[in-house]
Amino acid sequence: MKHARVFGVNCFFAFVFFSAAALALAQESAQSPAVSGEKAPEDQLKMQTKKIGLVIHGGAGTIERSKMTQDREREYRAGLERALAAGYEILKQGGASLDATEAAVHVLEDDPHFNAGKGSVFTSAGTNEMDGAIMDGKTLSAGAVAALKHVKNPISLARLVMEKSGHVMMDGEGAEAFARENGIELVDQKYFFTQERWDALQKIKAMEKHRTGAAGKRIPITDQDRHGTVGAVALDKNGNLAAATSTGGTTNKRPGRVGDSPVIGAGTYANNATCAVSATGDGEYFIRATVGHDVSTLMEYRGMSLKEAAQAVLDKVAKLGGTGGLIAIDREGNMALPFNTAGMYRGYVDPNGEYVVEIYK
Amino acid sequence: MKHARVFGVNCFFAFVFFSAAALALAQESAQSPAVSGEKAPEDQLKMQTKKIGLVIHGGAGTIERSKMTQDREREYRAGLERALAAGYEILKQGGASLDATEAAVHVLEDDPHFNAGKGSVFTSAGTNEMDGAIMDGKTLSAGAVAALKHVKNPISLARLVMEKSGHVMMDGEGAEAFARENGIELVDQKYFFTQERWDALQKIKAMEKHRTGAAGKRIPITDQDRHGTVGAVALDKNGNLAAATSTGGTTNKRPGRVGDSPVIGAGTYANNATCAVSATGDGEYFIRATVGHDVSTLMEYRGMSLKEAAQAVLDKVAKLGGTGGLIAIDREGNMALPFNTAGMYRGYVDPNGEYVVEIYK
Repeated sequence: MKHARVFGVNCFFAFVFFSAAALALAQESAQSPAVSGEKAPEDQLKMQTKKIGLVIHGGAGTIERSKMTQDREREYRAGLERALAAGYEILKQGGASLDATEAAVHVLEDDPHFNAGKGSVFTSAGTNEMDGAIMDGKTLSAGAVAALKHVKNPISLARLVMEKSGHVMMDGEGAEAFARENGIELVDQKYFFTQERWDALQKIKAMEKHRTGAAGKRIPITDQDRHGTVGAVALDKNGNLAAATSTGGTTNKRPGRVGDSPVIGAGTYANNATCAVSATGDGEYFIRATVGHDVSTLMEYRGMSLKEAAQAVLDKVAKLGGTGGLIAIDREGNMALPFNTAGMYRGYVDPNGEYVVEIYK
Repeated sequence: MKHARVFGVNCFFAFVFFSAAALALAQESAQSPAVSGEKAPEDQLKMQTKKIGLVIHGGAGTIERSKMTQDREREYRAGLERALAAGYEILKQGGASLDATEAAVHVLEDDPHFNAGKGSVFTSAGTNEMDGAIMDGKTLSAGAVAALKHVKNPISLARLVMEKSGHVMMDGEGAEAFARENGIELVDQKYFFTQERWDALQKIKAMEKHRTGAAGKRIPITDQDRHGTVGAVALDKNGNLAAATSTGGTTNKRPGRVGDSPVIGAGTYANNATCAVSATGDGEYFIRATVGHDVSTLMEYRGMSLKEAAQAVLDKVAKLGGTGGLIAIDREGNMALPFNTAGMYRGYVDPNGEYVVEIYK
């Protein structure tokens, strides 16, 4: 069952104009009914020579329909749409993929529904610690941050680390001191409190107690309770790819745990020669499988398509025992959004500029 | 000019018994005069069916002969030999490559000559912050630690993170709390004070002052002053590969800077299907080039030899602007030790069990 939602004029004739990018949409199940306004052939040509593209995700996991009210689903969809709009507006105006991915992730960080920034999950100590990264496919420049406690928008600090620190990766208090020096907004940990995330921590702690032998009933823990991540990948009109990822990590993680998001080559990777990738899921498995770089090298060294490479790497993650998903885009504008969980909050802009947002398989 | 030093009985006839592993030694300039005790053909056969191998490094950089006294050189060589002995003894007795790499790195961490553990360089704040990682090629399990301030042997904490934390990467105070809970030795920052590293920081700070316009004479800064890393890669008799890396990072780095050593797929990587890699050099470039995983995928997806792959990846690092080196070993026992700096402290055990230690090209 498809849950694609399309904004704009629907026109079935537009099918014939669908570019290769749309046809190559990686997720087999995502043969979305997305259609678009009719375009003149010359417009199509222009679009093909200066293709732009944007894909985002808001985390993969056991997203249970039974627990998803209509209101709640509407809120998630609205958040994803806002993120798409923020990023796509930049691309449409000829802006850089780097700016587009940062803008999209920024919106998701500010939305309490997603596990990043404001909506970050809690560590076992009841604190919030955030990771993130951004990478520029043109120069292979990258910025990554880990174990941040007070940075309102980790993705913007990652960008700053890339551009001004002389380093690629910074963490903890050192990273926050650098943020302070450079006017990045710091907030009290209270800012990151959301009742839902707090309840998820209590649920997992109760479950742990149960597991270790103490009395208590079995409490179902969904992936949704455990983790989540937000991310964006984009192609701009100059053919430059970029990837950005931000996360609060996993609920009940040990303080100091760093996931795959800030590990360049794992949760975040971009290379103009191949693709841009942002991952979400059991971070430990995604690090061990070097997910982002593996998608890239399967394309570059093995000649796989983006879709084949993305699926092959996700299969490797599954073989190790990990669940999750990833989003990817290549220099032709082909997109891939595979996941091996029940759902993944995700969205993309189709070749005709329509926003498509999906949650379930 | 070769600086190989061989310990044990020299016998020129042994040349004919050199296994393919020795012939494949990657570094062209390292056609070392290493020879060994004569072995009966059946022993040779046995060695080939159950090959073991160990390669270590103690950092790459502008190691200036003019500043290297005989005594000093002897100390470096002795440290590398002790590390080889610690690791090789384990492999010879049938132990695991994981144990061998940890043991070798442990020795180098305790030796003030190398930039890891005891001999760690100073941050711009005059503190010491250490990173490290270990990876098991059989299971792709990995443990990484970053921004440690009080852990005497970061490599042992990395191993513990891999085996007991449920996570792959941990940093800062959270990682140290986990260390404390598990009986890992913590020390005061004073333990990491060495006059030489302190002087190097002052020299770089003076240089910075000069650069920013203040008066002062030009002070030469060598790579040796700036960075360094220690690492080990090994193959055990069961065909399992492992890699371990530990570092104090770069002199004058911003507090919170994380280098390539703890980035799985960059400074540290092991995969039984291909190779084990430990890198040293300008960490930022090694992260951006996803060095370890790239060597592995060039072998797996492109069919390159270990030597070809290691050199190709180091060339990519150089193209980005980075200098350094790496050590690698594959499942056949082939070894590669390329570097693009004036020297790299390095050592390996040749197929006949002889220790070879080298510094310059």
